[in-house]
Amino acid sequence: MMEAWEASSGILLQRPWLPVNISGCHLLAKSWFGDTAYHILLTDMHCVWEERMVSAAIQKRAQELNKRLRAPVQAFFSHLCEVVQPTLTGSDGRPTDEALISLTKQEDGNVNMRLKSELAGLPLYWEFHCTPAPVTVVCVQLVRPLLLMSHLLQQQVDQLGGLLVKKDAEIQDYRENGATLSRERLQTDFFEEQTNREDFMAKTLPLLPRDTLTFDADLQRLYAAVVTHGATRKRRLSETCFVEEERPSKEPNPDVNQVGSVRSEPDEAEEQNQTRKLDGAAAKTADRPSVKQSAQATSDPAERPSSKPKKKKVGLFR
Amino acid sequence: MMEAWEASSGILLQRPWLPVNISGCHLLAKSWFGDTAYHILLTDMHCVWEERMVSAAIQKRAQELNKRLRAPVQAFFSHLCEVVQPTLTGSDGRPTDEALISLTKQEDGNVNMRLKSELAGLPLYWEFHCTPAPVTVVCVQLVRPLLLMSHLLQQQVDQLGGLLVKKDAEIQDYRENGATLSRERLQTDFFEEQTNREDFMAKTLPLLPRDTLTFDADLQRLYAAVVTHGATRKRRLSETCFVEEERPSKEPNPDVNQVGSVRSEPDEAEEQNQTRKLDGAAAKTADRPSVKQSAQATSDPAERPSSKPKKKKVGLFR
Repeated sequence: MMEAWEASSGILLQRPWLPVNISGCHLLAKSWFGDTAYHILLTDMHCVWEERMVSAAIQKRAQELNKRLRAPVQAFFSHLCEVVQPTLTGSDGRPTDEALISLTKQEDGNVNMRLKSELAGLPLYWEFHCTPAPVTVVCVQLVRPLLLMSHLLQQQVDQLGGLLVKKDAEIQDYRENGATLSRERLQTDFFEEQTNREDFMAKTLPLLPRDTLTFDADLQRLYAAVVTHGATRKRRLSETCFVEEERPSKEPNPDVNQVGSVRSEPDEAEEQNQTRKLDGAAAKTADRPSVKQSAQATSDPAERPSSKPKKKKVGLFR
Repeated sequence: MMEAWEASSGILLQRPWLPVNISGCHLLAKSWFGDTAYHILLTDMHCVWEERMVSAAIQKRAQELNKRLRAPVQAFFSHLCEVVQPTLTGSDGRPTDEALISLTKQEDGNVNMRLKSELAGLPLYWEFHCTPAPVTVVCVQLVRPLLLMSHLLQQQVDQLGGLLVKKDAEIQDYRENGATLSRERLQTDFFEEQTNREDFMAKTLPLLPRDTLTFDADLQRLYAAVVTHGATRKRRLSETCFVEEERPSKEPNPDVNQVGSVRSEPDEAEEQNQTRKLDGAAAKTADRPSVKQSAQATSDPAERPSSKPKKKKVGLFR
């Protein structure tokens, strides 16, 4: 189960967040459609929803929604992909084949994406039941990449500032040697980092929409760069310093000796290596809500692939 | 309940993410300690945890953890603040008063922060029970600010690139008029945006830690700017385009007519205005897990403050 979870998550991590328009809703989407299995992520930047489904679960839901459906799950699924992928990749505002898609937010916070199409002359229905994604998924797919991007961009700002200072030094030298401009309008102001930053913020911030939903081309490129970078690096031990308990203690007992080992989260690189195992492994978890899956994924030691035992951390309570 | 949730969330939004070191764990923390109420957020960038507690719940837990405790909750709480705040603000690696703090990750994914101190010569215990934060909270406190920061920084990169092009034009003009440098080393290379970006990425990316945990001074300043900017803006209707159902339908029924209205999420600005209502309102929800609170906060129409009724959205299924 972990494997399946990691596999599709690993694939999705490498995908860009694409702006999509689903029945008038502007969202960002990531989607992966495998061999009768899929994993989709949707966000309006106020919440992130996901659904991961595999063969058995897809067949079950397809039958529930289409009583008269006799097509094998493969045929049904390939038609589903054909119809829904244009919408989920933003390559088409409206799916082909006169399919109709609507988005509904449930009172429980879930989001249903309903699809009506036609297969062999009969109406064909499908529903994506998207639940709020686990926080760990949001951290992997958005928080960490965005923080890395911010760091990179800040460093680039600093680097360009340094270049501007050098340009000014060169210009200064020309001027001191009596050089003059043939065209006055070419003269530039001396660059002063702080003044420039303050002016920039004063001008730009008010124009910035509060809810920026898109990654433009530059940010998409940067996102791709940092997730690839991240996926090829091992997680540092300093990130996994928690003392983990063997069993959560029901009775509060502050003096307990914390015996535990340090374990690292599954690494995206490993997740990707397990891609092929997806279908088989995933089938076992058909139709479980994603949140549960991940809660287990991040908690069950037995299922952690990169379990590094480490010297017992001396607890502060002894 | 909503009010309390929004109030402390609104206050926390304006706080920086501070690097803290809790018994060897490097985390980022946001915390708010009010009048016998607190709200803390912790993240290792792989998950985000939080706990919000109010007077009644604090008293209950204090009694459970300290059977012989007779101090009124106010005295207990002010001592707790004194002891734990240095740690949660990173102003001190180790709290005062010989207090001992340890962090434990439960198998269920929760994080307990246990504290041992002394009050009036008796050992005094406290436990923060932090549960994974709702995705909506992670979006407000991290995802949206970080995306806005990335947009701003990208625009600043573009602006500085523009300045460099102007500098080169000025330098070009001097050179064409026969100007020469007195010091050769002052000569700069012609700035070419794409080449510069590629060189920068090639040099910088490999040096970037995969798990960057800190907001440095520049990013802190930028974070403060965008959250303030965001909090003073109303949410756009385009953000709330979901057709919401009156009741989630048990039976899958794709042909249902989606009668619903468009509602907006609570606005941070409003959240802040409701700060004073925190204690009173919050008391009602003492000791409920934060996840539940937020699930309700984002789902119960009756409790939505900025409920804007709107023309019925014509569903696509009719």
